[in-house]
Amino acid sequence: MRIGIDAFGGDNAPEAVVKGAILALESLDAGSRIVLFGDRDSILEVLEREGCSAELFDIVHAPECIAMGDHPMESFRTKRNSSIVVGFNHLAAGQIDGFASAGSTGALMVGSMMVVKPLAGVLRPTIAIAIPTVTGGMVTILDIGINVDCRPEVLEQYGTIGSVYASQVLGQQSPRVALLNIGEERSKGNAQAKVAYELMEAAGKQGRYNFVGNIESSHIFTGEVADVVVCDGFVGNMVLKLVEGLFAITASQGAVTPFWQGLNYEQAGGTMVLGIGGVVTVGHGKSTPEAIKNMILSTERSVKSNLVDSLREEFLA
Amino acid sequence: MRIGIDAFGGDNAPEAVVKGAILALESLDAGSRIVLFGDRDSILEVLEREGCSAELFDIVHAPECIAMGDHPMESFRTKRNSSIVVGFNHLAAGQIDGFASAGSTGALMVGSMMVVKPLAGVLRPTIAIAIPTVTGGMVTILDIGINVDCRPEVLEQYGTIGSVYASQVLGQQSPRVALLNIGEERSKGNAQAKVAYELMEAAGKQGRYNFVGNIESSHIFTGEVADVVVCDGFVGNMVLKLVEGLFAITASQGAVTPFWQGLNYEQAGGTMVLGIGGVVTVGHGKSTPEAIKNMILSTERSVKSNLVDSLREEFLA
Repeated sequence: MRIGIDAFGGDNAPEAVVKGAILALESLDAGSRIVLFGDRDSILEVLEREGCSAELFDIVHAPECIAMGDHPMESFRTKRNSSIVVGFNHLAAGQIDGFASAGSTGALMVGSMMVVKPLAGVLRPTIAIAIPTVTGGMVTILDIGINVDCRPEVLEQYGTIGSVYASQVLGQQSPRVALLNIGEERSKGNAQAKVAYELMEAAGKQGRYNFVGNIESSHIFTGEVADVVVCDGFVGNMVLKLVEGLFAITASQGAVTPFWQGLNYEQAGGTMVLGIGGVVTVGHGKSTPEAIKNMILSTERSVKSNLVDSLREEFLA
Repeated sequence: MRIGIDAFGGDNAPEAVVKGAILALESLDAGSRIVLFGDRDSILEVLEREGCSAELFDIVHAPECIAMGDHPMESFRTKRNSSIVVGFNHLAAGQIDGFASAGSTGALMVGSMMVVKPLAGVLRPTIAIAIPTVTGGMVTILDIGINVDCRPEVLEQYGTIGSVYASQVLGQQSPRVALLNIGEERSKGNAQAKVAYELMEAAGKQGRYNFVGNIESSHIFTGEVADVVVCDGFVGNMVLKLVEGLFAITASQGAVTPFWQGLNYEQAGGTMVLGIGGVVTVGHGKSTPEAIKNMILSTERSVKSNLVDSLREEFLA
């Protein structure tokens, strides 16, 4: 399979991206190949500096770059030769099987929605992240920042999307799906959460996923309550950035335990755009080569698990 | 001044409460006196066991207890001799100057709203907490769990309430007030946050408080952006419980730095009910004697600073 990578993506591109791609080589399946999208000469330069043969990669020349400050929709239309636009066109045409970028999240969402497109039946595609818990498992959180005003029906669907991701990609059996709320009782929460609880409970009774009720934020990382945590993008982004801020403080004090190290974005495999007709992974703008490597591997994992087909079937049913 | 304490409040009452009251004695002002509300014999028993003279306290016999599981409104009406109801009646009658309890938050809110009552002009009273930042200051967060569905106008008022608290009680000069959001730019956030930003910006321009814009959750505890963080109770409670959960994990791994210790609820002086006509402090149900002591001292501080009068004037203006 072919994993497309945006060589222009992230604050330290193309350096960090190409280095990350080199790091990923030894962990990728024999049948997998990395396709680098970006300025050919710049990519070759980094490869040469690293003493890595260019033949280990495919390179698609895409000399333009959508910068972090660019207007997502606007730049997607005008920068036709940018790494992101060319990458998405390759993905939509089936020339690559997944696309990963640490570039403009806005532009990546435009590509996801306009070029790859939502799956039939999905009200709102979402961005999810999988983070290690203290008990050695993984917790998938969604949405983490795209849909900041969610109807309860959208949250209910996130239960399905998260459950399919957790079982297909992470190999969790009958993943426990919970609604992020400010209390365990069903009567807790704001208006949105109360209705979402009802809908998710009904989905659970219909066997669509294993709904276990509300989860309080204090339990997200214990691994004891849920494998999939559903929330709207405002709250999810809040949770993620709070963890990021506390990690930074903890790290600055030299008090990083293995648990905290697991919350480090440099370790994370990026975030997944889910509910669209292709595999798209979004990396942190500050991604290090290690983060890029993990993003590539997580993209490969999603492709290998036939995640998109599983989700498509789930929403057709 | 007279600080009323609910001897029935919390999981380890009256033991932990009375012990905390004893601990508080040495730090209280000479003119301050603690009034214990609860079962007189139980209170005397703990005092005797601790070798502490009962004459150091006033005791108001209130033999009934509103339990955590009781319906707040219902129990407030039926348990007229409970420590919480008797305490609030004393507060409303001016027989005590402040009331602190680690008991049922629901019942404490009923007392705050029905007996003490909101200040004129305050749309929604709130619960706030002040937490140490990594840079040695304090950040006041509000609302942290009462108003889970806030109109933007309510958030705008929280700017005033938080600002008055931070300046009057914490002694911060022209406290920086920020709106908790998922980005720094004014265009970020959900529908609620976008409107709240406009209203808070206008309040800032009118000189009502020092509005500094949005704050991301990653910066809450750095102390670099804001002294007062405004959010709705759903998000605020989420933030607080996430910190609590991460503290528990960090503590279980023996990796508690002084910064993390500051986030420990046992150190906290409880949360403040603000925007009502009296000083009410709510402690964590699991409060230790140390936490009770801090709650008493924070209640005394609020009384001494004439917080309620300042807020009353602010909302009359």
